[in-house]
Amino acid sequence: MFEEILQNVKEKSPLIHCITNYITTNDCANVVLACGASPTMAEELEEMADIVSLAGALVINIGNLSKQTVLSMLAAGKKANALKIPVILDPVGAGASRYRTEVVSKLLKEIRFSVIRGNISEMKTVYNGSGTTRGVDACAADAVTEENLEEATLFAKRFSAKTGAVCAITGAIDIVSSDKKTFVIRNGNAMMSRVTGTGCMLTALTGAYCGANHGNSLVAAAAAVCVMGLSGELALDKTVTLDGGTGTFRVQLIDFISKMTPEILNGGAKIEMR
Amino acid sequence: MFEEILQNVKEKSPLIHCITNYITTNDCANVVLACGASPTMAEELEEMADIVSLAGALVINIGNLSKQTVLSMLAAGKKANALKIPVILDPVGAGASRYRTEVVSKLLKEIRFSVIRGNISEMKTVYNGSGTTRGVDACAADAVTEENLEEATLFAKRFSAKTGAVCAITGAIDIVSSDKKTFVIRNGNAMMSRVTGTGCMLTALTGAYCGANHGNSLVAAAAAVCVMGLSGELALDKTVTLDGGTGTFRVQLIDFISKMTPEILNGGAKIEMR
Amino acid sequence: MFEEILQNVKEKSPLIHCITNYITTNDCANVVLACGASPTMAEELEEMADIVSLAGALVINIGNLSKQTVLSMLAAGKKANALKIPVILDPVGAGASRYRTEVVSKLLKEIRFSVIRGNISEMKTVYNGSGTTRGVDACAADAVTEENLEEATLFAKRFSAKTGAVCAITGAIDIVSSDKKTFVIRNGNAMMSRVTGTGCMLTALTGAYCGANHGNSLVAAAAAVCVMGLSGELALDKTVTLDGGTGTFRVQLIDFISKMTPEILNGGAKIEMR
Repeated sequence: MFEEILQNVKEKSPLIHCITNYITTNDCANVVLACGASPTMAEELEEMADIVSLAGALVINIGNLSKQTVLSMLAAGKKANALKIPVILDPVGAGASRYRTEVVSKLLKEIRFSVIRGNISEMKTVYNGSGTTRGVDACAADAVTEENLEEATLFAKRFSAKTGAVCAITGAIDIVSSDKKTFVIRNGNAMMSRVTGTGCMLTALTGAYCGANHGNSLVAAAAAVCVMGLSGELALDKTVTLDGGTGTFRVQLIDFISKMTPEILNGGAKIEMR
Repeated sequence: MFEEILQNVKEKSPLIHCITNYITTNDCANVVLACGASPTMAEELEEMADIVSLAGALVINIGNLSKQTVLSMLAAGKKANALKIPVILDPVGAGASRYRTEVVSKLLKEIRFSVIRGNISEMKTVYNGSGTTRGVDACAADAVTEENLEEATLFAKRFSAKTGAVCAITGAIDIVSSDKKTFVIRNGNAMMSRVTGTGCMLTALTGAYCGANHGNSLVAAAAAVCVMGLSGELALDKTVTLDGGTGTFRVQLIDFISKMTPEILNGGAKIEMR
Repeated sequence: MFEEILQNVKEKSPLIHCITNYITTNDCANVVLACGASPTMAEELEEMADIVSLAGALVINIGNLSKQTVLSMLAAGKKANALKIPVILDPVGAGASRYRTEVVSKLLKEIRFSVIRGNISEMKTVYNGSGTTRGVDACAADAVTEENLEEATLFAKRFSAKTGAVCAITGAIDIVSSDKKTFVIRNGNAMMSRVTGTGCMLTALTGAYCGANHGNSLVAAAAAVCVMGLSGELALDKTVTLDGGTGTFRVQLIDFISKMTPEILNGGAKIEMR
């Protein structure tokens, strides 16, 4: 179902401008390249308008904030909105500090986002304007399970209705939802949380898919979530074969994103529509 | 001897807050995850108190300083001291510039550290308040050898007595010492200095071990030094088998940290108490 | 032909000070180490003079600018000029924003560079003081081909005459030129542009080679370009053997740089003098 989405990234090779954190930025750039798009990572306020004007999508990731960078995020987001370029938000660690929660509120007030992707604790904080997170990981109590999936799906729809953005909640079970339509995705595995930045990488990948598929953010985001999860599964198989650990897994994860085809994706996607 | 130390990291999975340099931060985050803990890397002054309040340990690494970051280091360190959370210092490149040496002096004056880990040149600079370093590497003239080991051990004890911190000097021979008790560790190899950030990674690992073993910083630091050195040995064996170079070695190093068990450690630790 | 160039790096192991972008800095540091030199990456203005005084070469990479960092670049460059240490410029994304183009002009006015390395679009912007770039990639229309090679070689000589720096233009065909003598190099492959930072890594490698071969920047830069391209070829072969993707390629690229010898280089260099 995602043939066209993937093909468009390779054909258009959109420029994806990322204002992100320095912890995982190299992996994010490599993931954007791996799927066929092209990354830029500038963040000086003075060049934001120029750089965003070249881009097919803008990714804002708050994993490592500074006051200066927040100004650049706001300027870039407004420019992207003016140019009708999709803007993707990763509210990393929202709820972990008052400052982070406030920055998210400000970003949501001043920028229209096409997709917001986070773990369930971060997404609850975004929705409620306050919350708690255990650092950059979700609280166990918040986790989406088969038991509370109905409820979580409803939350995702309400989240999308309130923010106007596609809501992408990732964890053991992933939910990608507009206010009306929801994809439930069961790809991926726990190894993905033993490597830093798999969430950031997924958000960058979502930016690449949205950047090549304007006006189709829901399906583009669902495709990105499937590709990431399936790449994680294939990477784990290979890591086990190689008797590797988390270092090998990280390399293999990027390998499988770079080797992904519509055929592999169709064969491995565990996706259901609700 | 380190079973409990390792087990505590996996069971408690403490949050380790790192204010570190952007050169090696991704590797540091991955090493913290590899051993079973969870990293945060924020550095905006305004969120320091909130983030440190969630943490089991704080790691301060001066590998890439800016005046703004130094303020965050000071705020985070004071908060951690108030909360009685262990604080670990990596005085990267102390002695390479007057500015760096001054920052270290200021940090030492205002923050109580549980562990300070550096190469011998950096540690002499920390102790003396002045010194010379060849960039981020130790001066050959300073190196700890079998010949000057007695003297170096005495220095480590005096260092610990003066600073109140466990003194961890790493090089061809590693010394981890309180003012009374010293571990001499002979794990590791020269390949570890051909990859950037192995020192930073070790300091982050020490943070994870101390964060899960409050009140036991000497043994926790010794365990971290052993795990890192032994992982380096196993990684080199595998790299040779794979006919790899420094790129493969780096991946394997993180692999073996993530696969480390008390059994492997007991089988390979080359540690002696003095 | 490059035996001595390579040997000097391993024997002198010069300190290479890099003021670079945080996206690819870890790879740059690892490449500097892989070839036998030693990296420092400080950027606080207050320590620039001290750190540059320890260095054998200075690398300035504008991949992620901030106003503060530009001040450090200027201070470092002037100090390096005063000390007669070679300074290498990577004008990443010159032309992608007015700000970047202006920063490049300012750097060129205030610092004497030994080598400037970029893609053809960036280099045209540097030469003309204005231009267009597609983010950090070259425009297809600018590409150096067998058809326009004569013209491109002439441009490289004029570039060198105007700036006083060795001109290193990299792409499908690489040109390394003084105002009189030109090397045309046909190593490398398209896979190298599917991994972030191969350009930055090459510039850092050029810094290492120039830092160990003062007064011989043309040949040192040509050697670095050959080593990088040949390592890319060997890395691709191995990646294909391992059924890997871009993640594996990146690891193998650093592996082959670390395993490079004069013999391997002589066997694989595709270089011609014009």
